[in-house]
Amino acid sequence: MFKKLTAEFIGTFWLVLGGCGSAVLAAGVPDVGIGYLGVALAFGLTVVTMAYAIGHISGCHLNPAVSVGLWAGGRFPTSELLPYIVIQVAGGIAGAYAVYMIASGQPGFDLAGGLASNGYGEHSPGGYDLTSSFITEVLMTFMFLIVILGATHKLSSPGFAGLAIGLSLTLIHLISIPVTNTSVNPARSTGPALFVGDWALSQLWLFWVAPLIGAILAGVIYRWLSPNED
Amino acid sequence: MFKKLTAEFIGTFWLVLGGCGSAVLAAGVPDVGIGYLGVALAFGLTVVTMAYAIGHISGCHLNPAVSVGLWAGGRFPTSELLPYIVIQVAGGIAGAYAVYMIASGQPGFDLAGGLASNGYGEHSPGGYDLTSSFITEVLMTFMFLIVILGATHKLSSPGFAGLAIGLSLTLIHLISIPVTNTSVNPARSTGPALFVGDWALSQLWLFWVAPLIGAILAGVIYRWLSPNED
Amino acid sequence: MFKKLTAEFIGTFWLVLGGCGSAVLAAGVPDVGIGYLGVALAFGLTVVTMAYAIGHISGCHLNPAVSVGLWAGGRFPTSELLPYIVIQVAGGIAGAYAVYMIASGQPGFDLAGGLASNGYGEHSPGGYDLTSSFITEVLMTFMFLIVILGATHKLSSPGFAGLAIGLSLTLIHLISIPVTNTSVNPARSTGPALFVGDWALSQLWLFWVAPLIGAILAGVIYRWLSPNED
Amino acid sequence: MFKKLTAEFIGTFWLVLGGCGSAVLAAGVPDVGIGYLGVALAFGLTVVTMAYAIGHISGCHLNPAVSVGLWAGGRFPTSELLPYIVIQVAGGIAGAYAVYMIASGQPGFDLAGGLASNGYGEHSPGGYDLTSSFITEVLMTFMFLIVILGATHKLSSPGFAGLAIGLSLTLIHLISIPVTNTSVNPARSTGPALFVGDWALSQLWLFWVAPLIGAILAGVIYRWLSPNED
Repeated sequence: MFKKLTAEFIGTFWLVLGGCGSAVLAAGVPDVGIGYLGVALAFGLTVVTMAYAIGHISGCHLNPAVSVGLWAGGRFPTSELLPYIVIQVAGGIAGAYAVYMIASGQPGFDLAGGLASNGYGEHSPGGYDLTSSFITEVLMTFMFLIVILGATHKLSSPGFAGLAIGLSLTLIHLISIPVTNTSVNPARSTGPALFVGDWALSQLWLFWVAPLIGAILAGVIYRWLSPNED
Repeated sequence: MFKKLTAEFIGTFWLVLGGCGSAVLAAGVPDVGIGYLGVALAFGLTVVTMAYAIGHISGCHLNPAVSVGLWAGGRFPTSELLPYIVIQVAGGIAGAYAVYMIASGQPGFDLAGGLASNGYGEHSPGGYDLTSSFITEVLMTFMFLIVILGATHKLSSPGFAGLAIGLSLTLIHLISIPVTNTSVNPARSTGPALFVGDWALSQLWLFWVAPLIGAILAGVIYRWLSPNED
Repeated sequence: MFKKLTAEFIGTFWLVLGGCGSAVLAAGVPDVGIGYLGVALAFGLTVVTMAYAIGHISGCHLNPAVSVGLWAGGRFPTSELLPYIVIQVAGGIAGAYAVYMIASGQPGFDLAGGLASNGYGEHSPGGYDLTSSFITEVLMTFMFLIVILGATHKLSSPGFAGLAIGLSLTLIHLISIPVTNTSVNPARSTGPALFVGDWALSQLWLFWVAPLIGAILAGVIYRWLSPNED
Repeated sequence: MFKKLTAEFIGTFWLVLGGCGSAVLAAGVPDVGIGYLGVALAFGLTVVTMAYAIGHISGCHLNPAVSVGLWAGGRFPTSELLPYIVIQVAGGIAGAYAVYMIASGQPGFDLAGGLASNGYGEHSPGGYDLTSSFITEVLMTFMFLIVILGATHKLSSPGFAGLAIGLSLTLIHLISIPVTNTSVNPARSTGPALFVGDWALSQLWLFWVAPLIGAILAGVIYRWLSPNED
């Protein structure tokens, strides 16, 4: 169990360092910056790379909504749920701290830039309101879990799950960065919010509630939808 | 059969939400927007992710032209053709509605932006005329079906079909977004057109006729071209 | 043999329609255009998609330099070399014609834009001289064939060859579009040159000579380098 | 052994030619240039393509930090360590020379542009200080080796390692090009530095020391973390 939790810690650290780090450090560089497309690719590739690196150790959830969705779908034991969530949040905080350390080495760094925190309304990148933001996070997490539950099903193609799941996270970011900066992952949201404080903390509730609703819905529906595997 | 149709509904919903959604929400954001390249990637990834998530349930067509092309190639039973097409169109409409709901949460949203509808002539993104647009949709759907029929052939590499087919949809968008906004999928075209109405509805015929012609041609030709698999 | 040649014709048609088509239609669109990165991806994906669609029919060469390199490496019979090259050139011409047909449907189309022809010196996109252009085409084709010969070797990972080879063509374009517009494929160069005429025809020799030199070198060297597979 | 070293030479040559070449030749082209996103993809694809081309010959390290990290993780024999490092550096120098030869064929070429050398402080692309740069190189190489050690583990998915490892190099570049121009590879840093001289040589120490520290840490930690495979 300790090895599983270490793997989840490293993986969630990498998800936040890679995803939020690319957003903070590289997205907005003039002319040659990577933009939302590069950030979407970065988030997805953190999952692709970790899936093959630690998937055989911990299952590579890296996300409380994923653990909860797998649990709702009957694929993850209740007893491991809380430890996984705690260590994922810890990894997310460590990842956000690494981004902060690196970013603060640039002259003119200002934490008010937001460290890629998630937000809605005034703090949505495109100014999308609370309703749009909530619907987006529920729908995106729902589809994320459908891909996870489907691609890891015994009747799907073994080996390809890591690729399909990681690329679904890229796709989700391609759609929804302008809306909420894209969470679908409470651990990814909590890390930067703790450093930014203020609005990021006060809006954090949405990025726990909406992803968990979407994940549970997907777990229940996919369980009914999938061919028996028992 | 009900589970198959549910899977096709979710998948086509995802194709339109992901593809048209990324186009409406993220393509044109100044400086960091994802552009046509990001939209091309998004459309392709909806298919890649669904192929591994629901391919083992419904075959993951998500597209009336695909169902018709597979039927013309002798790979899909006549009895399932109509239900598949109906549910795909329903999924496309639901996906377009989700895009509409999210997009309308941004101040200044205007449905006249088109919700990523397909068009030709005056409504082609680059002003391409009817002839160019028709040829493009026939050719692109023809090649799409060649890839689908070939990559799912028993002598091809098992497991890789989802990747090859999804990436072929990315490629098709890289070529033809400027011409017709790229359809090759009547369900994808019908969804946004119903909300936009007006020109989008009156040009909708082309995005049923041309893809179906291309798909049937591919089915007939590939059937002759392929090594016997029976 | 007739089916093999049909497959090579369709595949090379797709390579030129997809690669040159994306360059002509979508690369330079203001703000949302796909740029060299999108064109590089498009060229690579034509090969990825065809590898899984027709690889089991014809081997999916789509390129005289590939056929010659495989022949030099002892992997392709002398008797099939000429028919493959002839049909690849025919497919390239057909692909260029399709690009021309589609592009000419846009108001203001001018063939002087070049249909994505290859060139050096004054006709290199970045003004690179003859020496740089020649070295580039030899080196890029050499490495392309090393990847092809290596990834299809029995000791490599079965199934992944199509992906590795297609993505190597993407990589080659990421490096060398500014130099020669990237050929590494005489059939791809011949198609557009026939329609553009003039300078494109008079510079065409380089895009036959340099790729063939690079391919033969790679065939000979990899044959020595590779573990025995006989 | 001679064949292994030849393969490592070709591979590291390709890594520097492809990665630094795309940066020098294609990243900054106005309007259609590939930007940091294209360079990140190019570096990753050099590894993806070589993994499938020469992985079965030499293991495809292409990087002294990789060889040292695998050695620290108990996966690479001490006796081969020095020859691998020497030939990787030689390949990196040859790759940088090829970039120089091609780039110098463009009117107005100036070596002061830096040939994509790595740097910190004044010579960091974004002006990041020594501390940030050092931390970045340690962390990025650490995670690179975690992916390498994990994805090549017997319990991971066979065949996918080349893809996961190459894409992790893309991810690393998406995050850290603005900080140090991204090394994580002393051979990649040494090649261009020898031609640029001056500041590139005097800052070269960091791009040996930091990657090797990160790699050794990863080797030691993953050895403890991984399920027994002996």
